[in-house]
Amino acid sequence: MTQNILLLAGDGIGPEIMAQAVRVLEKLKSEGLDIAWDNALIGGCAVDATGVPFPPETLTKCQASDAVLLAAVGGPQYDTLPREQRPERGLLAIRKEMQVFSNLRPAVVYPELVEASTLKPEVVAGLDIIIVRELVGDIYFGEPRGIEVRQTENGSERVGFNTMIYSESEIRRIAHSAFKTAQKRHKKLCSVDKMNVLEATQLWRDVVIEVSAEYPDVELSHMLVDNAAMQLVRNPKQFDVVVTGNMFGDILSDAASMLTGSIGMLPSASLDANGKGLYEPIHGSAPDIAGKNLANPLAMILSVAMMLRHSLNKVTYADRVDNAVKTVLAQGYRTGDIMTVGGKKVGTVEMGDAVLAAL
Amino acid sequence: MTQNILLLAGDGIGPEIMAQAVRVLEKLKSEGLDIAWDNALIGGCAVDATGVPFPPETLTKCQASDAVLLAAVGGPQYDTLPREQRPERGLLAIRKEMQVFSNLRPAVVYPELVEASTLKPEVVAGLDIIIVRELVGDIYFGEPRGIEVRQTENGSERVGFNTMIYSESEIRRIAHSAFKTAQKRHKKLCSVDKMNVLEATQLWRDVVIEVSAEYPDVELSHMLVDNAAMQLVRNPKQFDVVVTGNMFGDILSDAASMLTGSIGMLPSASLDANGKGLYEPIHGSAPDIAGKNLANPLAMILSVAMMLRHSLNKVTYADRVDNAVKTVLAQGYRTGDIMTVGGKKVGTVEMGDAVLAAL
Ligand SMILES: CC(C)[C@H](C(=O)O)[C@@H](O)C(=O)O
Ligand SMILES: CC(C)[C@H](C(=O)O)[C@@H](O)C(=O)O
Repeated sequence: MTQNILLLAGDGIGPEIMAQAVRVLEKLKSEGLDIAWDNALIGGCAVDATGVPFPPETLTKCQASDAVLLAAVGGPQYDTLPREQRPERGLLAIRKEMQVFSNLRPAVVYPELVEASTLKPEVVAGLDIIIVRELVGDIYFGEPRGIEVRQTENGSERVGFNTMIYSESEIRRIAHSAFKTAQKRHKKLCSVDKMNVLEATQLWRDVVIEVSAEYPDVELSHMLVDNAAMQLVRNPKQFDVVVTGNMFGDILSDAASMLTGSIGMLPSASLDANGKGLYEPIHGSAPDIAGKNLANPLAMILSVAMMLRHSLNKVTYADRVDNAVKTVLAQGYRTGDIMTVGGKKVGTVEMGDAVLAAL
Repeated sequence: MTQNILLLAGDGIGPEIMAQAVRVLEKLKSEGLDIAWDNALIGGCAVDATGVPFPPETLTKCQASDAVLLAAVGGPQYDTLPREQRPERGLLAIRKEMQVFSNLRPAVVYPELVEASTLKPEVVAGLDIIIVRELVGDIYFGEPRGIEVRQTENGSERVGFNTMIYSESEIRRIAHSAFKTAQKRHKKLCSVDKMNVLEATQLWRDVVIEVSAEYPDVELSHMLVDNAAMQLVRNPKQFDVVVTGNMFGDILSDAASMLTGSIGMLPSASLDANGKGLYEPIHGSAPDIAGKNLANPLAMILSVAMMLRHSLNKVTYADRVDNAVKTVLAQGYRTGDIMTVGGKKVGTVEMGDAVLAAL
């Protein structure tokens, strides 16, 4: 049965890197992979065309597909729009609508790119961790929220508020996802919370401990979020899989990805309860280099590999794409963001050529 | 007029490092500094003696003094106590009661200790930034909060919740504190928020911008918290002063301090509206090395210097203490945590001796 993919190229460098991902898909299709794809709008380009960052038509197409591939959204021209129209609202909406609660963000250091890190080689060489971030709950979506004028001890003044909230069932499903991820790796899971201050995360810890009874083969530990931020800097290789809430996950996963020094190389997957997913590079839309054939398409191409593995169940194809990326790195091909001494500097399209050749 | 200091030695290595700080105070007093001090309990030792981590007597003494010096609280034997009795509750209570809303956390790399960092020398050499963290508001203290059973779409289940909340006046006073701190330094202030998702931090950004009109000599920038976590790893020297809320400040200041590789060297100050303050090393109570003459007393001694500078207005004495610490580092004295090749390894007391000699 044909599997359907929805492509959301978005803004900035999005269309350029998506074009290289499509070349990979075309190649695999020509060899027998039974897929089809369609395109839709999200982010700034959607605002331009329809007035909203996540148009109903895009939602309908998401629902009709087996997996969604997203490049990047956003750009300076959209920063002054009203809140509801900003490109990142499109991101939050697609996550919520697709209920992709489990965001897998790998931070991997490729041997050829160790030097790109600001950390010492011995601290990051061989780094291979995954942050599992809960993606559709927490203070991102909690109510009540807003800015309003209230009477306080200082008289009448504006007050801004948001609600961090997690229910047992929300924690349970992300915990299962994280334990299963750990089972496929080195069987170590570290759950990050701030239970010494926040009740919402005390419940988080309690429920994660309850769920752990079902995964006796996984070694569970707990860490406070401030300590986790330190340990990522001090000794990131102590981790295998880290699981945490939406807000802490936003911060820690970005810190973790920057440890690698090459965020142009990092894909991500966001999965729903049935394994359907949204796949995107973790980097942004980089408007400053858009349209110049400078962007690194590898995180986008690695997102294709993650999609093949997690949603389409095509492990062999996934491995081939992953290996093709390793090959081009070993061959010395480098876009500007990952340039190393002695590397062969190439543009977006040439990097795509190299990957196709290596496939 | 005699200035009164309250000493809170706390738990773990607390008493040992406090003893060295007291030797410094005795020396300065013998030379004419007009100070007096008293002791009180906080944390685990307070729970042991009185049943609560921040006894009323300690509060009374805090109110009667011009500055409070705190070493460290906590230990594994207290981790199983009910929430209200845990040592960290004492910390939160003293901050709130003293209304020390402005927490200054410097992250400084001493030339002799560059190698201690996990980051490359060129990335951290000369690093000297301050994180100004709001300390008595935000989700740390926001109501409503708790864990309760609610009806959700998944039936009856536990839900944990906390409230992130900031009022205009709370933001205004920390912003003033941060701008003033920047004025005394390189006049660059970066305010960190998550305004693209959280209304509470949208108000934060709005109010910081309003306050900035009064500080035309300070260059203000804004950064999202996830990006700030990345930039601290990528290029920490781009910052001078960073200001942010209590929760983000907890995470970012710990990350920043770990960049230095020597958290045994970092003091902190928490100030109220009148400059009265609470001074403490940023490291913890290190129960594993307590009582073994292994702890590094320098962060504690540097906290004395911060106290002399910010609350007691004794800038010359403060400079002398800071310089004495620089001298002992230059002389090669090292406790185990900051040991470098060729260093003279010493214990807590011997490090105290060296500082006294250098004073
Ligand atoms: C753009 C923003 C809303 C988003 C988030 O905070 O989740 C981004 O930072 C991310 O991590 O994907
Ligand atoms: C112990 C804890 C409550 C405290 C905090 O979160 O503020 C600590 O992490 C700190 O940064 O001083």
